Amino acid sequence: MIILFGVFVRYNPESGAHWPEYRRMKNFTDLENDFYFRYPSFQDVHVMIFVGFGFLMTFLKRYSFGAVGFNFLIAAFGIQWALLMQGWFHSLDYNDGKIKIGVENLINADFCVAGCLIAYGAVLGKVSPVQLLVLTLFGVTLFAVEEFIIISVLHAKDAGGSMVIHAFGGYYGLSISWVLYRPNLGKSKHMNGSVYHSDVFAMIGTLFLWMFWPSFNSAICNHGDGQHRAAINTYLSLASTVLTTYAISSLWEKTGKLDMVHIQNSTLAGGVAVGTAAEFMLMPYGSLIVGFFCGLISTLGYIYFTPFLEKHLKIQDTCGIHNLHALPGALGGVVGAITAAAASTTVYGEEGFRGIFDFNRVAPVQGGYQAAALCVAIVFGIGGGIFVGCILKLPIWGDVADENCFDDEFYWEVPEEEEIVAPVLEYNNHMMMNKNSAIPATNYAVERS
Amino acid sequence: MIILFGVFVRYNPESGAHWPEYRRMKNFTDLENDFYFRYPSFQDVHVMIFVGFGFLMTFLKRYSFGAVGFNFLIAAFGIQWALLMQGWFHSLDYNDGKIKIGVENLINADFCVAGCLIAYGAVLGKVSPVQLLVLTLFGVTLFAVEEFIIISVLHAKDAGGSMVIHAFGGYYGLSISWVLYRPNLGKSKHMNGSVYHSDVFAMIGTLFLWMFWPSFNSAICNHGDGQHRAAINTYLSLASTVLTTYAISSLWEKTGKLDMVHIQNSTLAGGVAVGTAAEFMLMPYGSLIVGFFCGLISTLGYIYFTPFLEKHLKIQDTCGIHNLHALPGALGGVVGAITAAAASTTVYGEEGFRGIFDFNRVAPVQGGYQAAALCVAIVFGIGGGIFVGCILKLPIWGDVADENCFDDEFYWEVPEEEEIVAPVLEYNNHMMMNKNSAIPATNYAVERS
Amino acid sequence: MIILFGVFVRYNPESGAHWPEYRRMKNFTDLENDFYFRYPSFQDVHVMIFVGFGFLMTFLKRYSFGAVGFNFLIAAFGIQWALLMQGWFHSLDYNDGKIKIGVENLINADFCVAGCLIAYGAVLGKVSPVQLLVLTLFGVTLFAVEEFIIISVLHAKDAGGSMVIHAFGGYYGLSISWVLYRPNLGKSKHMNGSVYHSDVFAMIGTLFLWMFWPSFNSAICNHGDGQHRAAINTYLSLASTVLTTYAISSLWEKTGKLDMVHIQNSTLAGGVAVGTAAEFMLMPYGSLIVGFFCGLISTLGYIYFTPFLEKHLKIQDTCGIHNLHALPGALGGVVGAITAAAASTTVYGEEGFRGIFDFNRVAPVQGGYQAAALCVAIVFGIGGGIFVGCILKLPIWGDVADENCFDDEFYWEVPEEEEIVAPVLEYNNHMMMNKNSAIPATNYAVERS
Repeated sequence: MIILFGVFVRYNPESGAHWPEYRRMKNFTDLENDFYFRYPSFQDVHVMIFVGFGFLMTFLKRYSFGAVGFNFLIAAFGIQWALLMQGWFHSLDYNDGKIKIGVENLINADFCVAGCLIAYGAVLGKVSPVQLLVLTLFGVTLFAVEEFIIISVLHAKDAGGSMVIHAFGGYYGLSISWVLYRPNLGKSKHMNGSVYHSDVFAMIGTLFLWMFWPSFNSAICNHGDGQHRAAINTYLSLASTVLTTYAISSLWEKTGKLDMVHIQNSTLAGGVAVGTAAEFMLMPYGSLIVGFFCGLISTLGYIYFTPFLEKHLKIQDTCGIHNLHALPGALGGVVGAITAAAASTTVYGEEGFRGIFDFNRVAPVQGGYQAAALCVAIVFGIGGGIFVGCILKLPIWGDVADENCFDDEFYWEVPEEEEIVAPVLEYNNHMMMNKNSAIPATNYAVERS
Repeated sequence: MIILFGVFVRYNPESGAHWPEYRRMKNFTDLENDFYFRYPSFQDVHVMIFVGFGFLMTFLKRYSFGAVGFNFLIAAFGIQWALLMQGWFHSLDYNDGKIKIGVENLINADFCVAGCLIAYGAVLGKVSPVQLLVLTLFGVTLFAVEEFIIISVLHAKDAGGSMVIHAFGGYYGLSISWVLYRPNLGKSKHMNGSVYHSDVFAMIGTLFLWMFWPSFNSAICNHGDGQHRAAINTYLSLASTVLTTYAISSLWEKTGKLDMVHIQNSTLAGGVAVGTAAEFMLMPYGSLIVGFFCGLISTLGYIYFTPFLEKHLKIQDTCGIHNLHALPGALGGVVGAITAAAASTTVYGEEGFRGIFDFNRVAPVQGGYQAAALCVAIVFGIGGGIFVGCILKLPIWGDVADENCFDDEFYWEVPEEEEIVAPVLEYNNHMMMNKNSAIPATNYAVERS
Repeated sequence: MIILFGVFVRYNPESGAHWPEYRRMKNFTDLENDFYFRYPSFQDVHVMIFVGFGFLMTFLKRYSFGAVGFNFLIAAFGIQWALLMQGWFHSLDYNDGKIKIGVENLINADFCVAGCLIAYGAVLGKVSPVQLLVLTLFGVTLFAVEEFIIISVLHAKDAGGSMVIHAFGGYYGLSISWVLYRPNLGKSKHMNGSVYHSDVFAMIGTLFLWMFWPSFNSAICNHGDGQHRAAINTYLSLASTVLTTYAISSLWEKTGKLDMVHIQNSTLAGGVAVGTAAEFMLMPYGSLIVGFFCGLISTLGYIYFTPFLEKHLKIQDTCGIHNLHALPGALGGVVGAITAAAASTTVYGEEGFRGIFDFNRVAPVQGGYQAAALCVAIVFGIGGGIFVGCILKLPIWGDVADENCFDDEFYWEVPEEEEIVAPVLEYNNHMMMNKNSAIPATNYAVERS
């Protein structure tokens, strides 16, 4: 990695020390350095990747170390590899063969990694860290190619990555999970659930994802109104999704109680689905409609479709990424295609239209290309996933046995549980006061701590 | 909601696609889009609303799902309703009857929701989600009217919302709690307390509120020095409050130990109290003085006043919002009135004075209007709270019985507790090794998990 | 404190109400107020100080209140004192003898406090809050002097504070810990460890530190390319460190399992080490190399050096700050010296070179001064630490006995543990159903809750 960076990667004019000369040439002020346009959004995206995705997956009772720790590992590995892969495709300076990086590359690397983290959600608790690194290595590579086709060949727009990130990442993960199907996963069923505090930890992930999603969708939009509008659309869509999710979760459960799984996940689907169209003139009510439908299908997906997937299609989807990423991502692609096809200079203004759809296409044609882009994303996801899944099936990666899934013990030094000690001590003392030596065994629990 | 948004809500010129033309007309650069002035502050406020308020209330041992989950629900509902209500009062374009929204509206919607979340603190654990939605529906409506009177009729200044948000929200919640008084709440007393880890979760809320409060108070200040000064004043006031809180908490307790309730809440009071005056030339030492007194009265409030409220005034205030929001908010209004009355062009400069107090009033008159504004906020809070409390008392909202308060079981699918399993298993195994079958019952706990 | 602020502290021209006149005079727009350049970075740094450092230290099973609570206390105290101390040295207006503060002073105050929080890491769980306040009082004072010598006398560059903050803070804490050596600390050994959920809490701290470190290192860099480049270098160095840490942690452990202590701490070492050189033209591969070596020495430090320190040098380093701050900080100083010595106008451009090394020195001389600065930082750290350690050794500060270390009970009202209640109740009920009264004592545990 160091060698590749040494050979290929350099600063771009806005991050290099020649900026004062470059600035004078361009007649910029210091503030017009891209850093000030994008750095706050970058940090929000960064939080989503590391805290958001990491903590969202901590819901399992004994896989919190793996969730947040392996998320950290593959994200840190992925961003380096993504800077190279995306650099070759997008930021290569043909004069000297170097990749010139700036803050936008960092954001794109975070985006690229998001695709792999989504895929991790499907196989959470069932693969080894080495398998995850392989998954990420190929995932980033596939992502860079797919993104190149969608953005640079088809000239489709996908600011928030509904197609490029979510649909691709979702189907990539599901396909891998399909290839790696474990028929005897039931053996570790008792570990495949949450405890009270692990659900609260997961809400940290949910909320940071939810709050910063407007930054995710607006981070690489056009300066000015593009970023502004994308943030508003995402904010509205997400707010709408939350209401639908709570309503459906409560109505569809027999007991009328809310289910934490839905609250943790489906509330985010609106951000996924509005990704492609975020920059467009979707209109505030359009965003609400998208959010409403997304909350609906995502929550119902958790109730009906995830069990169906597992039972009939042999796809074990630990985090339910089909309902949070794959399906809403595809829906987002459709919304984007429709909105693009319906775009007109009346709504956008002459200049605004050209600013957003930088190519000389009429709106319906752009809509068609958007739809084509969605197909590319799904094909890459499924095809790539099956390919990588087969590689991961090789018996050389040290994955755990079926009965040890969803358990940190196998890969982490887990501290011995002692939360019980204080009451046990007391209880034990009390026992002794009662001269009741029926259960001397409790001493054992205390001593070993 | 979708229909109302469809009829009324549109983008404003800075978030619409006509921005390139608008920008040229105004001779702006892209950076002068309000998005770049306010978006980072908006995100900080957003974190405060969803993570800050949400996690601050997770301190109860078995109401963390409700705290963070219902906070999420009513905030997401409230911001949509607030965009409409505040839009009609503040952002209506009279040419076409549409509300034009931009990033400042999003911040204001978050502010508006904050008032309702404060009120939630008083009734935490004692009301149903439907009641909370009703509380929010009316709360946002009252807020918009009250804000209109204070800001647009009285032309009072309240950048950080000491009066508009905190005093209103605090008294609104307390009045509701007074109407909904539960004489037999003692039945669920064993649930009205914290456990070790729930207190740590609550500190996440405290810290994010504390850290981002400078953004809260500066988010909608004037560009330039206004935002800058508001952030500094808030930062200093908060730092000062922390010291006072620790000192009082330790000195007033008989054991000399610190109480987590004070640390979680009173440390924030300085941010509330400096809200109105944040933008003024309060001077750094003035901020420290405000923070000092706030830490003092807030901590003493927890020690003496909350029990008094419950015993003699029949107000059950779960989170102690009287000490964190109502009283410091009122104090902030007073500080604001005094600071405004004492303002002079010597200190502010001719231009600065006009920039902040945009109306042609002399300083003492402005001080009087500030005081009037505080009265309006409190009257709306108490009056509105009693009115809404009476509605919520109707027996149609499905609230829980006294003995089920502060318990997630009633509204959430709570995972079965298994943290105990590992030691129990061990203990049990050990028992069996001892051939001691005195307590076969432990098997039960293991099996059902 | 209030009096000192009253006498000395005023707003600077960018945060005072005379800004409109100042702005006109300088021909600035509102956006060129320093607030917009630095406020987002300030907030990130603020999060690092309060959430990052606070939660990083929550890993102990029963010292989470102390970790996050005392961190809060000393940070809030320290920033006030730092504004004064740093103000006298750096921001004093000689015309009127006042300290003029703006957002950059707030960032610097946060930085200054970071040094003391690092020192807290070494003595975590072993000192009283009063001792911590004394540690901070002297620490901030020493920091201000040391910073003055390094920045204003030697004119060394240290944007991210590898030397000024980390090397100083690290050796300061280690020296104090050495003076306060507790030979019988083994008595509380059972408390000096983590439980499952406390490790997850600590990961919150780790991740927020990790994510926002690019802001830390870039916060006070030059506008434009300086901030941009510092963020990129830090991002790359940190990513590289994560990979090395995981690899070493897994390879060096006999069981091949990952150790949470390494993941929580060593992953951050890359950010420390790249601090001094962050603004320089370190090149992306240079950052990766720095990160790689830092992950290596930091992880190996935890495995071999911390036990060695404790056994042979009588330094008890609770959080292992030697491996996370002291050593990487010193390494960062060396990297900075080398990079500065190797700087040339070919790489930086004429203007860029002058912009960064504002003095008329040739590069090798600057390198020498950088090395001298590192020595100053270490000498201040060790000397100051021994001096303050001796003061803290006086028997008047109320520190805890050896057997009560690492336990919140002594300073906090700790809630009684009840997580066990539900299963016990059940178990108890079951017992009663079985008419088995062999262990009536369990009633006791339930009743007292």
